[in-house]
Amino acid sequence: MSNQSINIGILGLGTVGRAVLDLLQSNAKIIADRAGAKIKVVAVCDVAAKASSINGVPVYKNAEKIISNPKIDIVVEAIGGTKPALEYILRAISNKKHIVTSNKEVIAKHMPQIYSAAQKNGVVVLCEAAVAGGIPILNSIRDNLAANHITEIYGIVNGTTNYILYNMTEHGVGFKDALKAAQKQGFAEANPSADIDGYDAMYKAVILAAVAFGTYVNYKKVSREGIARISQEDIQYAKESGYAIKLIATVRRVGSRIDVRVHPVMVPKDHPLAKVSENYNAIFVKSDFAGDVMFYGQGAGGKPTASSVVADIINIAQANCCVDDCCGEACDCEQATSGPKAHLLDIGQIESRYYINLKVPDRSGVLAEISRVFARHQVSIQAVSQPETNRAVATLIIVTHLVRHANLQSTLRDLKKLSVVKTISNVVRVGL
Amino acid sequence: MSNQSINIGILGLGTVGRAVLDLLQSNAKIIADRAGAKIKVVAVCDVAAKASSINGVPVYKNAEKIISNPKIDIVVEAIGGTKPALEYILRAISNKKHIVTSNKEVIAKHMPQIYSAAQKNGVVVLCEAAVAGGIPILNSIRDNLAANHITEIYGIVNGTTNYILYNMTEHGVGFKDALKAAQKQGFAEANPSADIDGYDAMYKAVILAAVAFGTYVNYKKVSREGIARISQEDIQYAKESGYAIKLIATVRRVGSRIDVRVHPVMVPKDHPLAKVSENYNAIFVKSDFAGDVMFYGQGAGGKPTASSVVADIINIAQANCCVDDCCGEACDCEQATSGPKAHLLDIGQIESRYYINLKVPDRSGVLAEISRVFARHQVSIQAVSQPETNRAVATLIIVTHLVRHANLQSTLRDLKKLSVVKTISNVVRVGL
Repeated sequence: MSNQSINIGILGLGTVGRAVLDLLQSNAKIIADRAGAKIKVVAVCDVAAKASSINGVPVYKNAEKIISNPKIDIVVEAIGGTKPALEYILRAISNKKHIVTSNKEVIAKHMPQIYSAAQKNGVVVLCEAAVAGGIPILNSIRDNLAANHITEIYGIVNGTTNYILYNMTEHGVGFKDALKAAQKQGFAEANPSADIDGYDAMYKAVILAAVAFGTYVNYKKVSREGIARISQEDIQYAKESGYAIKLIATVRRVGSRIDVRVHPVMVPKDHPLAKVSENYNAIFVKSDFAGDVMFYGQGAGGKPTASSVVADIINIAQANCCVDDCCGEACDCEQATSGPKAHLLDIGQIESRYYINLKVPDRSGVLAEISRVFARHQVSIQAVSQPETNRAVATLIIVTHLVRHANLQSTLRDLKKLSVVKTISNVVRVGL
Repeated sequence: MSNQSINIGILGLGTVGRAVLDLLQSNAKIIADRAGAKIKVVAVCDVAAKASSINGVPVYKNAEKIISNPKIDIVVEAIGGTKPALEYILRAISNKKHIVTSNKEVIAKHMPQIYSAAQKNGVVVLCEAAVAGGIPILNSIRDNLAANHITEIYGIVNGTTNYILYNMTEHGVGFKDALKAAQKQGFAEANPSADIDGYDAMYKAVILAAVAFGTYVNYKKVSREGIARISQEDIQYAKESGYAIKLIATVRRVGSRIDVRVHPVMVPKDHPLAKVSENYNAIFVKSDFAGDVMFYGQGAGGKPTASSVVADIINIAQANCCVDDCCGEACDCEQATSGPKAHLLDIGQIESRYYINLKVPDRSGVLAEISRVFARHQVSIQAVSQPETNRAVATLIIVTHLVRHANLQSTLRDLKKLSVVKTISNVVRVGL
């Protein structure tokens, strides 16, 4: 390759791949000015491709034409998932190509393998677009907040679930209808599990932990709850009590341990995260000098994601990684995989307030029986309410004071054994 | 200097200078890791210094000890204002020292002179901390949104005025009491003009325009209104009508012209900027691919400002500016001063909706007379309201449709001539 031109190959021509090609061509001049080099897409690959070229760029069905192409300096992986993305990434790295990817799953699951291969081959793997789409969260933590010790990151990192919860809150629709609307809008996949069960947010949390704390957290051990059990009853209670339910990813340093988890939270309505509407993302970063900084924007979609992919390409170009040995500063997760192993904080130790929605018979004595179980596990009740009902089965809502997750779990186990508890409809954390 | 160590001199030991020293010493290890070099404060200067050293660093009263010190690579200017800051900056540049400053006034006023001197001497001048304190707005625009054409930037960039307006809104206090409270909290200076008259926000807008559009706007020509005329009556009307009054800085590209202005706006209460509380800052950046991205955080104070100052120092270190010729990528405003001259959009051409608060006699016929003046200047009225009163002088509130500023101004001129108009109490733009 030449100093004056950096050649890109794109794997995958879905929404993201196409938008990256569009951005690199549409804004070629300012990108070249910023990068200090011409950035040129020389080949793209898509197994389902019908045309043999797109906007003057050859389209191949065989990824090998990119991975082994000696002209290509940077491979943009926009396939998603782990198969065949992982294999392609590793082969491209072994061919000394830098990698830019928007694929959170492959990075969160295979970070150690990918980054040790990159280090061995002297190349860079960047993934700004993998977390919160167009929001420059990883680069901001790494570069702009570089002087700070990050203490905590928390926020809304999945646009699909925010869209669903927002619709349930604003328009009173049930979860299933809100999901269908999200699918119709193209915000949710036909198989929505990765979003609604919290996997997508969990992958992003693992990457955030790596960038913020330089430590790799095994994604299999991360505590994760989705939003599929959130009902209109929960939403209504939250609204009436001054909260909005949001799916929150949390990454904290607690002593020598790291707390990483994803679950719904009733966010106080005056908190900026409570106001995040539609499919937007918003992330708070707390650090010792900068204080609280929040980043807000489009967390998904072709164009915003492409903005972050190309920012990474410019980063690699600016650091002269394509001509010299790479300077290393641009490498996000390298420290995380070569540094000390992270010990996850046991979820049982974490204190929260909880909202518990129980279905019980509508008769006296029930509350006394239930309260005894809470007391036995040292779970202190802050408020009890029973919406009026005409049916034999009533809803009983209990909100606790701050309690350890382990105590709450043992309380729930014993509640299930009570004959007066028909169902535990839902349990949601209250407060950030 | 050595590759392994970068030596810093700090001019000014006020809130910012002290916090920079504190941060560089407290977080020395992570800063060195990030920067790839040890960053060491070797001297500080303060004319009012009483001690001869602080935390092991010599303190001088004579700035020359920093500016002409051959050991120093980077001068942190934390004096503020233009005298003697400008002279010190220029002399340090001529001594081949890089400059990092939090001083918005000197950069906004003397950008061409400072950046052409820097270019001639092969040094870098960075000022992340000058705009929105701890929020990494300039670096985000320059690096993380580098692939985008920025179309518009708008937001709250002055914490003092936000604190005052927030207090007036939340606690019903008048402007003067809110200002006193801000002074007591240390958010406003004894002479508050720079903040409340919009100068500080205007300097920041000029810097944002330079970074976003690569063009220097003469600060003297920027349209600027402060918040000193905002009354409880205006605040109450805004609240009742679903707005919050905020001091908004706007920087837009409109065809071949740049629109830069600072003035209060009635922001719709569902807009994220309406919720920005206390002395926080929040800035929206609109661009062609990333869409809307918002940055939110502490816009002032020693620690957040120091976070941004040190981010700039790390930037200079990473780009190897202290060993090689500087790569140029790190230079914010260089393009702005060497590039094409900006033509400001004439404020008269800009369309807004307006809230107009008039004091009039409480009798019939007044509205007819006033309406005629609006009609004569093609200013279409959207709503009229007259809060109940027992006094002879009534308040008449008129809200217009979208009208050009020039037409509004000629309307106001003619209104002043009407005998039925006792006072034009205030005029505030409505909507973002």
